Amino acid sequence: MASIASKELAANTPGLHTSPDETNKGYLVLQTMFQIKDPKISLDFYSRILGMLLKRVAVPELKFTLYFMSYEDVSLDSSDPVDRTVNHHSYALHDQEFKGYQTRNSEPLDSGHIGITLDDTIKACERFQRLGVEFSKKQLLLLFMPSLSISFVRYAFIKGPNGYWTEICDMTTIGAVVR
Amino acid sequence: MASIASKELAANTPGLHTSPDETNKGYLVLQTMFQIKDPKISLDFYSRILGMLLKRVAVPELKFTLYFMSYEDVSLDSSDPVDRTVNHHSYALHDQEFKGYQTRNSEPLDSGHIGITLDDTIKACERFQRLGVEFSKKQLLLLFMPSLSISFVRYAFIKGPNGYWTEICDMTTIGAVVR
Repeated sequence: MASIASKELAANTPGLHTSPDETNKGYLVLQTMFQIKDPKISLDFYSRILGMLLKRVAVPELKFTLYFMSYEDVSLDSSDPVDRTVNHHSYALHDQEFKGYQTRNSEPLDSGHIGITLDDTIKACERFQRLGVEFSKKQLLLLFMPSLSISFVRYAFIKGPNGYWTEICDMTTIGAVVR
Repeated sequence: MASIASKELAANTPGLHTSPDETNKGYLVLQTMFQIKDPKISLDFYSRILGMLLKRVAVPELKFTLYFMSYEDVSLDSSDPVDRTVNHHSYALHDQEFKGYQTRNSEPLDSGHIGITLDDTIKACERFQRLGVEFSKKQLLLLFMPSLSISFVRYAFIKGPNGYWTEICDMTTIGAVVR
C-alpha cells in the first residue's frame, strides 16, 4: 500500500536536511525549461489546448528564441494579464539549428533544467562555492542580451545530482526579462 | 541584439492563440517531474544546498517512491511550514529497479513532464478529447494508491509536441497527495 509521511524526518530519510539554511529563505521555484523543434506546433498546443500566455525573447545573433509560457498570476497588481505572468512558467528553447534533443545526462547539457529565483544571486553563489557545488555557467546572460538594458544581469547554473542543472537568478532579472 | 516582445500578437507568432478558452481559467503550472538514481544524494542537494522541503509518497508494491521537493508558500494559511508546500514543486521519481534515465523522446515515456492543476479534470479531459488531444494515461492513480483514502482521484496525462507529457490533476487530489 502507498504510504504518505505527513512530515518527513531526517532520521528516516537519508540525505534530507530538515532545517533549511537562513540564506535559502525566499527561494522560489520559477521555471521549467525544455527544447522544442517547431514553435508553431508547440505554441498552438500550449496556448490553444492549455491556455498558456506567452512572453518571447528572441536572440537572432545566436539563432535561438525563448518562449516563456505560463498562466496569469491574478495576485500580481496589474490590469494587463500578460504583465501578470511572472509566476511559474514553462520555458521553451527553440534553436534555429535544431540538432535533435539533448538529454540531461550527456554533453552538451545546456538543456532541460529547473529555475530558482532569489534575492541575491552573488551571495547565493558564494555560498554554493563554499559548499563545493559545481557551476555549469555564471552570468552568461550578460554576454548575449545587451539589449535588455539591464545594468547587471545576475544568473548562474549549478550542477545537481544525476546531471540536472538548476538555474539561479535574481527576481529583478526575471522581472526585466519577462516583463 | 536580443529583442523582447512586450505583448505577443498571434499575427506575428504562428501557432499562438492569444484568447485562452474559458475552460482554461484557473489552470496552474504546479510541478516538474524528473527521475533520480539515489535519493540520499538528491535529497541532500535539494534540501541542504537549495533548502527545499520534502513530502514523500512511497509505493512499495510498485517499488518506487515519489519525493515532492518545494519551498514553503507563506501565503497559505498554516502554521506548519511543511503544510505550506503545495506551491510549485519539483518532484523526483526513484525507481528501486532503476534502469537508467528515460528520455522524453523514446519509449517508455513515463518520465519527465510538467504538471498542471485545475478544478475539473473530467471536464478538461472531455474538451481535450473533442480537440483530438492524445492521452498517455487516464486516472491510473486510482489503481496503485488505494491507501490515500481519496474517494476518487482524477488525473490524466496528455501527450504534447516533441513527446513531452503534461499531467492534468484536480487541486483536491494534489491537496490529498501532498498534504
